[in-house]
Amino acid sequence: MTAQLNARGDVAVLIPAAGSGLRLGPGAPKALRPLAGEPLLVHAVRRVAAAPSVRMIVVAAPAAEVGAVRALLAPVAPVVVVPGGAERQDSVAAMLAAVPAETEIVLVHDAARALTPSELVESVAAAVRSGHPAVIPVLPVVDTIKEVGPGETVLGTVDRSVLRSVQTPQGFRHDVLAAAHGLGPDARLGAAGPVGPVGDGGRVSHTDDAGMVEKAGTPVVCVPGSDLAMKITRPLDLVIAEALLRVA
Amino acid sequence: MTAQLNARGDVAVLIPAAGSGLRLGPGAPKALRPLAGEPLLVHAVRRVAAAPSVRMIVVAAPAAEVGAVRALLAPVAPVVVVPGGAERQDSVAAMLAAVPAETEIVLVHDAARALTPSELVESVAAAVRSGHPAVIPVLPVVDTIKEVGPGETVLGTVDRSVLRSVQTPQGFRHDVLAAAHGLGPDARLGAAGPVGPVGDGGRVSHTDDAGMVEKAGTPVVCVPGSDLAMKITRPLDLVIAEALLRVA
Repeated sequence: MTAQLNARGDVAVLIPAAGSGLRLGPGAPKALRPLAGEPLLVHAVRRVAAAPSVRMIVVAAPAAEVGAVRALLAPVAPVVVVPGGAERQDSVAAMLAAVPAETEIVLVHDAARALTPSELVESVAAAVRSGHPAVIPVLPVVDTIKEVGPGETVLGTVDRSVLRSVQTPQGFRHDVLAAAHGLGPDARLGAAGPVGPVGDGGRVSHTDDAGMVEKAGTPVVCVPGSDLAMKITRPLDLVIAEALLRVA
Repeated sequence: MTAQLNARGDVAVLIPAAGSGLRLGPGAPKALRPLAGEPLLVHAVRRVAAAPSVRMIVVAAPAAEVGAVRALLAPVAPVVVVPGGAERQDSVAAMLAAVPAETEIVLVHDAARALTPSELVESVAAAVRSGHPAVIPVLPVVDTIKEVGPGETVLGTVDRSVLRSVQTPQGFRHDVLAAAHGLGPDARLGAAGPVGPVGDGGRVSHTDDAGMVEKAGTPVVCVPGSDLAMKITRPLDLVIAEALLRVA
């Protein structure tokens, strides 16, 4: 059953799926690894498509697999599939180019967070709509966290009460994300290069668009994430995800 | 089938189970919550007892339930059950008092990490035996981590490459743990009070004996942890743990 998207929605969701990602084993792109018989990307798209504010979904696939990914997703939801680039930010730029200028909110998702509920997509979008230029879903850090030095020796215990574990989708005002990626009219004002260290010695992960926006000086605010939005990367994660699928 | 412990082993394992812990719902002590039909504590004790170096297992139970916990564990392994105290460190002190002075290595475990494999118990003990006074099993931090300020606004991206997520069992030279808890001959030299902040603004969790040892100036070293040693605290964790139980 193909989902219908809301033609009056104000949200575009970008899902980069061009990376090959070896953590679930060599071979197929990480986003196409099966979970309960269906690729992670299919699970992710199905849930995104069920979010009432979503007007458009854009996926970046490996150039050689654009047709195959289009065919895979056609029965799931109306999805625009574009060829991804060599680096993740190239794929995000390619997807952004497919989003009409009048779409006010752009979310960047991760297919590895395949069970992310529609409700989380909505709550991130709602926070952007309410006036925050950049929004990330987060969970508290539950385990004790140590900082280590050379030889895996403990340097100290970190105050985890101020730490948050970041999930996706990350949500942005369209112009803010475009500027952070060096695109659009604000590029010269807002962009600070595609990827690099931010904050006090921190590092921007390849799946952390909010880090690029932070670096450009835009405030980023957190909303509560979901246990179901866990990242499925290791083989054991598939076991956990299949269990969650049975109760979610 | 009752496990036999190794009479020549050099390791005592302490498992505080006197806390009531409400995160899995009100009522029974957290350690007695069922997982696949058996209390978490039973799962934990069974795996600890299967570790070849373990000579003694001590459990601290709520004072009113010492008999019941003894009866519960009798078919699983030979376990010394003592009444716990009002605070966790009181329970650890009560359990330490039951450990013979000649036992050289003491591990402190958490019944909520009920699926911790015997191999992890052994590797922590082996690292203490090889000369490290304090050893903790850790996992790398896989999600992007942000530091937040007031209003859940992001202050910056934390360099997670130097962060480790701490599990149990934590392992100690017997004298080092006793001193950190203000017990034994080294108490006046090594102890710095039972619980308090350590490092640069960090906080010691109630299940983090290593934090107390750090505070006393003893070096703490990390060894690789296990995905199976996950902490089972929320209802969703039970779903995950049951799935892991089927494959582990």
